[in-house]
Amino acid sequence: MTAPTELQELRTLLAEISDLRGIEALLYWDQATYLPPKAGDGRSSQLATMAAAIHEKQTSPALGRLLDKLAPYAEQLPPDDDVRALIDVARYDFDRATRVPGPFMAELAAHTGHSYVAWAKARPANDFAAVQPYLEKTLDLSRRYAEYFPGYAHIADPLIDSADRGMTVADIQPVFAELEAELVPLVQAIVERDGPDDAILGKYYPEAGQWAFSLEVLAQLGYDFDRGRQDKTHHPFMIRLGHDDNRVTTRVDEHRLDGLLYSSVHECGHALYEMGTADTWRGTPVDSGTSSGIHESQSRLWENLVGRSRGFWEHFLPTLQGYFPEQLAGVDVDTIYGAVNTVRRSLIRTESDEVTYNLHVLIRFGLELDLLEGRLAVADLPAAWHERYQASLGVHAPSDVDGVLQDVHWYGGLIGGAFQGYTLGTIMASQFYAAALAAHPEIPDQIRAGQFDTLHTWLRTNIYARAQIHRQRTPGACHRRRPRSGALPRLFAEVSLGRCMGWMRDA
Amino acid sequence: MTAPTELQELRTLLAEISDLRGIEALLYWDQATYLPPKAGDGRSSQLATMAAAIHEKQTSPALGRLLDKLAPYAEQLPPDDDVRALIDVARYDFDRATRVPGPFMAELAAHTGHSYVAWAKARPANDFAAVQPYLEKTLDLSRRYAEYFPGYAHIADPLIDSADRGMTVADIQPVFAELEAELVPLVQAIVERDGPDDAILGKYYPEAGQWAFSLEVLAQLGYDFDRGRQDKTHHPFMIRLGHDDNRVTTRVDEHRLDGLLYSSVHECGHALYEMGTADTWRGTPVDSGTSSGIHESQSRLWENLVGRSRGFWEHFLPTLQGYFPEQLAGVDVDTIYGAVNTVRRSLIRTESDEVTYNLHVLIRFGLELDLLEGRLAVADLPAAWHERYQASLGVHAPSDVDGVLQDVHWYGGLIGGAFQGYTLGTIMASQFYAAALAAHPEIPDQIRAGQFDTLHTWLRTNIYARAQIHRQRTPGACHRRRPRSGALPRLFAEVSLGRCMGWMRDA
Repeated sequence: MTAPTELQELRTLLAEISDLRGIEALLYWDQATYLPPKAGDGRSSQLATMAAAIHEKQTSPALGRLLDKLAPYAEQLPPDDDVRALIDVARYDFDRATRVPGPFMAELAAHTGHSYVAWAKARPANDFAAVQPYLEKTLDLSRRYAEYFPGYAHIADPLIDSADRGMTVADIQPVFAELEAELVPLVQAIVERDGPDDAILGKYYPEAGQWAFSLEVLAQLGYDFDRGRQDKTHHPFMIRLGHDDNRVTTRVDEHRLDGLLYSSVHECGHALYEMGTADTWRGTPVDSGTSSGIHESQSRLWENLVGRSRGFWEHFLPTLQGYFPEQLAGVDVDTIYGAVNTVRRSLIRTESDEVTYNLHVLIRFGLELDLLEGRLAVADLPAAWHERYQASLGVHAPSDVDGVLQDVHWYGGLIGGAFQGYTLGTIMASQFYAAALAAHPEIPDQIRAGQFDTLHTWLRTNIYARAQIHRQRTPGACHRRRPRSGALPRLFAEVSLGRCMGWMRDA
Repeated sequence: MTAPTELQELRTLLAEISDLRGIEALLYWDQATYLPPKAGDGRSSQLATMAAAIHEKQTSPALGRLLDKLAPYAEQLPPDDDVRALIDVARYDFDRATRVPGPFMAELAAHTGHSYVAWAKARPANDFAAVQPYLEKTLDLSRRYAEYFPGYAHIADPLIDSADRGMTVADIQPVFAELEAELVPLVQAIVERDGPDDAILGKYYPEAGQWAFSLEVLAQLGYDFDRGRQDKTHHPFMIRLGHDDNRVTTRVDEHRLDGLLYSSVHECGHALYEMGTADTWRGTPVDSGTSSGIHESQSRLWENLVGRSRGFWEHFLPTLQGYFPEQLAGVDVDTIYGAVNTVRRSLIRTESDEVTYNLHVLIRFGLELDLLEGRLAVADLPAAWHERYQASLGVHAPSDVDGVLQDVHWYGGLIGGAFQGYTLGTIMASQFYAAALAAHPEIPDQIRAGQFDTLHTWLRTNIYARAQIHRQRTPGACHRRRPRSGALPRLFAEVSLGRCMGWMRDA
């Protein structure tokens, strides 16, 4: 059956939306990198105008009519057909968009713009009071957003669905509970024994050398600087401005060697995913990563399973020593390998080790539910934060800077749906990596020799190139798609997720 | 008479357009500063989509109805009323926009995006052939654009009008002819005598020092880095992304001291104008510089009348010597002052001295007319360029890099209307400056002492704050608005424009 002419018309409308979303992404990228200090209000207004313009296109009656016409055609296609996937995803996006009024989207965009600016100012000043009213409005907007999707089982479900289609609180909570039950005693056991020492990471490492090293690492891992770039920001992120424009950001601490590097590699993992989507679907909604969870599986895979492996440092230590010959004189592979895998009762999620990392995520996920359910007031959030950290990790942040103000998510977006992907992704990362190793047992040796191509190609073929085409094929939870490719010791059963952490891989 | 409710509705629609135009400006800024090499096609598509979205808003029937309803109200207001100016400018913009179809605007935006990318690649490669087809299409689009405004006296008039409302070829040609008749023998006379030596500018000046010095100069001149920033680009420009976001760009040549500095100061002059508009009209079309000519009068004023004055160097030489103590050891004020005012048969417009500068502009203006009138084919443009330079300036560029490929204008926009503003602005700059000196004779002494406030305040009050509100009050040629504030020796009569050049001011 030949494709109806409506398919081309659909692609024209989708390409417009895709352009506008790329433009919106540029507004956010610029806001977080180069925007002049006093331009925040103007930018918020631009974001609101842009959100309204996008919403208008996303909900246009012409688009709805096309999708209606294409429905019978799609139904005749095999379930795993790519065009069927495209039509399905376009329909899903249209249905979601039409539920939420345009003025709400504009109000949300303007508010999150203002809120981001307030956070960027309040964080260095340790001033939670300054962001509290913004956060209260964010919570109100988040609840209102959820109400546009009546019939949910949990108020967070519509918010989670927008990041991880098909996932619900009911899916996530048992997985997280199981994980927490394993992790808390595990952290306790690890910190009580003599672990490796990370003092070497705390010397003075000037920015220029850290920056140049990170660029070299990214280039070797396969990041294409002709289709992206790296800049500095408050809170690292990767953003897709277009099929050939996938930018990463990182931040600098001259008194800590691993912060910039692992943020860089993490965002690079996201970017490799986006850079690897097939050219065929350029300008359509399937030409981008499929969900927050799958996305994080790629960032966490490169950050941890590759970046914290012994092989990685066998290859990269000499290069790093070239940048910092004095600071790293006489340091051997075991020392740096141990240092970047040190486990401690950490305060900062993005800089935490692999074992404690998921506890940070679980705390945030739990707080999001409490806020949305009305069990926790925004005013009480800092105290609740400290209380949970004490219970789960046994630490108390000296201030809100390293407490409730540390992550940008709630200050530049909605509350709900922002965090579960990190842990789902971490779990999937181990599973994907195990599948790659099953197919190519030579990968670790290659990494040791500075060759990342086999792994990259496996990921491109099996994950990147399919992008959101995966979505349609497995409606429902993305994490159910985990490969089960053999009895590898590293691929742990679902009942022992606590041991599924990458840190144990070659420790 | 109280303002009708339609006025507020008008401002709401205009604010949306203003936001979208600011977003479009960000797309251009990013394209010229940080866009990854392979993202050019995607950006062109985004520019086209954005142009169509803006055109849709600019020509919306709702806007037309509001303007119709407001017309009788505007007519009752005094001719110099600000609200009347706003309504007039909005009407003018609406009428212009509705003459040009949206798809044409999208095609133009996409084409100029591609053309800019081709130019950025072709210029370093000295490859005119690579851009020739783009330029041919640009010429075709320029002619088609003009045809949407039938009834013109000259095909360039509609194009000139979009930059300098009310100006025509018939207005400009006599002024330029007179100027050329004076300038050609003047250049001849100057280069034949012994002039100052600029060897000092050609030493090796590392980028970091040049960059830091330029930032210091801009800050002292009054550029507000909370409402703007400076970045590197191929061809320097200033761009307004919003009322509080006015960015400048410059470029670096480590073997030439004055290129970065004077580009910076030139763009700073544009930015001071935009930064000085009154807050009252934020989000409306009158909240921006009024015309290309008036804009260039501000950039040229700061670049030349201030930046190349002896007083400027009395103040800034010690600072510059702090950045380059070895290169500038023993250099005195007269040496640097002479060096930055050296007149020679120059090849590059943006780096030329004040005397030859306008000859560069006149050559381009003449070529634009020849192209538009069909008297010159794009294929013959490089040869025509060399011929004109030989006749007018007595030089022949060694390649097209410093010939027809040197300026971005024709490669990133239309042919026609791009250049006349530079010379009109240069003329007006002297006249505005003379008026400022008549009001405040202490200005030169203040500059010598590093105080730029009095001049800045005079410009803000008399020019910046009025922005486009000037437009309505004097329909017709902007250059007719030149102040005639006394018999100052520096304010030359219209018949001897050749001597109206700032360079003679204190030479």
